[in-house]
Amino acid sequence: METVERWLAIARAPGLLARHLCVAAAALGEPLALAGASAADLAALELPEAARRWLHAPDRARIEADRRWLEARGVRVLACTAAEYPPLLAAIEDAPACLYVRGEVAALASAQLAMVGTREPSAAGRRDAYAFARHFARAGLVVTSGLALGIDAACHEGALAGGGRSIAVLGCGLDAPYPPENAGLAERIAAAGALVSEFPPGTAPLKENFPRRNRLISGLSLGVLVVEAARRSGSLITARLAGNQGREVFAVPGSIHNPMSRGCHALLRQGASLVETVDDVLEELNLPLLKQELSHQPDHPPEAGAAGPALDKPYEILLDALGFEPASIDVLVDRTGLPSPSVASMLLVLELEGRIGLHPGGRYARLA
Amino acid sequence: METVERWLAIARAPGLLARHLCVAAAALGEPLALAGASAADLAALELPEAARRWLHAPDRARIEADRRWLEARGVRVLACTAAEYPPLLAAIEDAPACLYVRGEVAALASAQLAMVGTREPSAAGRRDAYAFARHFARAGLVVTSGLALGIDAACHEGALAGGGRSIAVLGCGLDAPYPPENAGLAERIAAAGALVSEFPPGTAPLKENFPRRNRLISGLSLGVLVVEAARRSGSLITARLAGNQGREVFAVPGSIHNPMSRGCHALLRQGASLVETVDDVLEELNLPLLKQELSHQPDHPPEAGAAGPALDKPYEILLDALGFEPASIDVLVDRTGLPSPSVASMLLVLELEGRIGLHPGGRYARLA
Repeated sequence: METVERWLAIARAPGLLARHLCVAAAALGEPLALAGASAADLAALELPEAARRWLHAPDRARIEADRRWLEARGVRVLACTAAEYPPLLAAIEDAPACLYVRGEVAALASAQLAMVGTREPSAAGRRDAYAFARHFARAGLVVTSGLALGIDAACHEGALAGGGRSIAVLGCGLDAPYPPENAGLAERIAAAGALVSEFPPGTAPLKENFPRRNRLISGLSLGVLVVEAARRSGSLITARLAGNQGREVFAVPGSIHNPMSRGCHALLRQGASLVETVDDVLEELNLPLLKQELSHQPDHPPEAGAAGPALDKPYEILLDALGFEPASIDVLVDRTGLPSPSVASMLLVLELEGRIGLHPGGRYARLA
Repeated sequence: METVERWLAIARAPGLLARHLCVAAAALGEPLALAGASAADLAALELPEAARRWLHAPDRARIEADRRWLEARGVRVLACTAAEYPPLLAAIEDAPACLYVRGEVAALASAQLAMVGTREPSAAGRRDAYAFARHFARAGLVVTSGLALGIDAACHEGALAGGGRSIAVLGCGLDAPYPPENAGLAERIAAAGALVSEFPPGTAPLKENFPRRNRLISGLSLGVLVVEAARRSGSLITARLAGNQGREVFAVPGSIHNPMSRGCHALLRQGASLVETVDDVLEELNLPLLKQELSHQPDHPPEAGAAGPALDKPYEILLDALGFEPASIDVLVDRTGLPSPSVASMLLVLELEGRIGLHPGGRYARLA
């Protein structure tokens, strides 16, 4: 098999996670060796049974069809070993080995806020979702959601209206985005952001795919903002996953007479941050600092002889903790004692400033 | 001076607190000795200067006028040394030495929920305040508030509409309840609950009286529920005092577009309990337990030979901690390790069951 076909075989391996691919790469010398590996080699790896079976005898015709589809639609397969694989996603325990991406791959590694909510919002909820997303996009955040009807769609629309980028994570193959009502929106997202899925083309939007999809929405993002959600709602699953992944959870309160505020109120009871304004989110994520640092940059060049503009204390701590050997966000959280979302957003700042570089597996290292 | 005039002299002593009266009673043999005490005796007591000056030379004409007013209007002066002095209020550090009470004194020692909010509520906020208060009154809680226009008035009205009792705590003398618009409401509260003030008749509703008044609203109550409040609002002072006094703070969320929800959202950020329904409050206050215990009482008489109906574990712990020597709520909190509002509500249950008795100074002791 050629390289691209090997990658396509790996991408199709059911349930294959980033950590499986890392282990395989270490054992076999390189990740690509996993496609077409011998039965003995595969047996020695701790892989999901279905993935092992597929990798032992991948369906060549199917892979060939995938390749043609990829080329025709400009879809990329992004493996966790690639430098562009989103570092925040790489930091979660069950990150997928590969993502199918249609659109701008770089959007995935940009600072994202996930916004999710009910498919049946109130008029006010829909307006708020749109307005919040537009403001976040203007502030430079990528808005990530699930392309569902209702709040999800309003968030994508708002981000695009704000002149920003949006990412839609699907629970089906990228060949047939679900729901069909949002096919036009999906095209516009692919043109200003990205459509993302871990499911290969041809995967139907099965109910059981969505909780798994939700971990990617939160995993890609610095935090999850729930705008309106009923008490039992997929949005609450996304929020719970975000909490487990160490990401911020935000909720917009509402009238006690609005059933679609119940889910948000339940999250607030569990400790979610209450959001009245866009700034509430930016402050909690440490992003005013991001904007401030960036806006200082062109006006205040480093003084002669100085290594660079003076850094705030947490940035100094973080840079001190970073060596020239790439380190993951988890490791940096351990080393610095700083909260995980702060570390993530500070790394983005430092990367934008050209002080640090992003390495495969979502790890960072100093450049100078 | 006669006894009643001595009490009236003590009640008028500016800034005299319950703890001052206790110290004086211990030093002089009995609390009444404070009125007309010698300059030397007064000098030996740690009293506020204004109180000392007044007690040294009380204005007999004024006291006589107070006496006539008390008799004409059926107002009682309730000293902290009286058995009816509300035990929850006695537990706060700056409990007043005396209260003027018009109406049913026993209401003061009943389980109360304070409900407060803005003078300029939304239509929905006013409706919610009324509906919540009516339900609390039906559940047996006395609703305590400040007689202000807006939310306060709606809460008093709701409690009365629910066939329950209400307490209005004033920041002026009981001779001229403020605001005059609520004079009719004040009369109805005096007939089904009580009007309460620590300020003597003739005291104008000065701005500076209200924060001081607010500590009584929270101090009398198991918790404070804020229905609607602007970001800068007297209701937030009451909520803060409630927190300092170890009482529960509750807030009703609302639309992010309603300026009168801002105060509630600020409280929720600070850890107040989010309230969507009446049950949210009753559960947090342990009062479903109160209702359950009471409803068991008539149907399930104690078995022959048993000391009484079986008690839940926290009640057993509390009864074990109670001796025949009266103990304050603070002491019982120390002895049992149970949270203060729970101890307070359990004591009310045990008193209603006839297991314990209320003693002067808000202290409790076992009866058998």
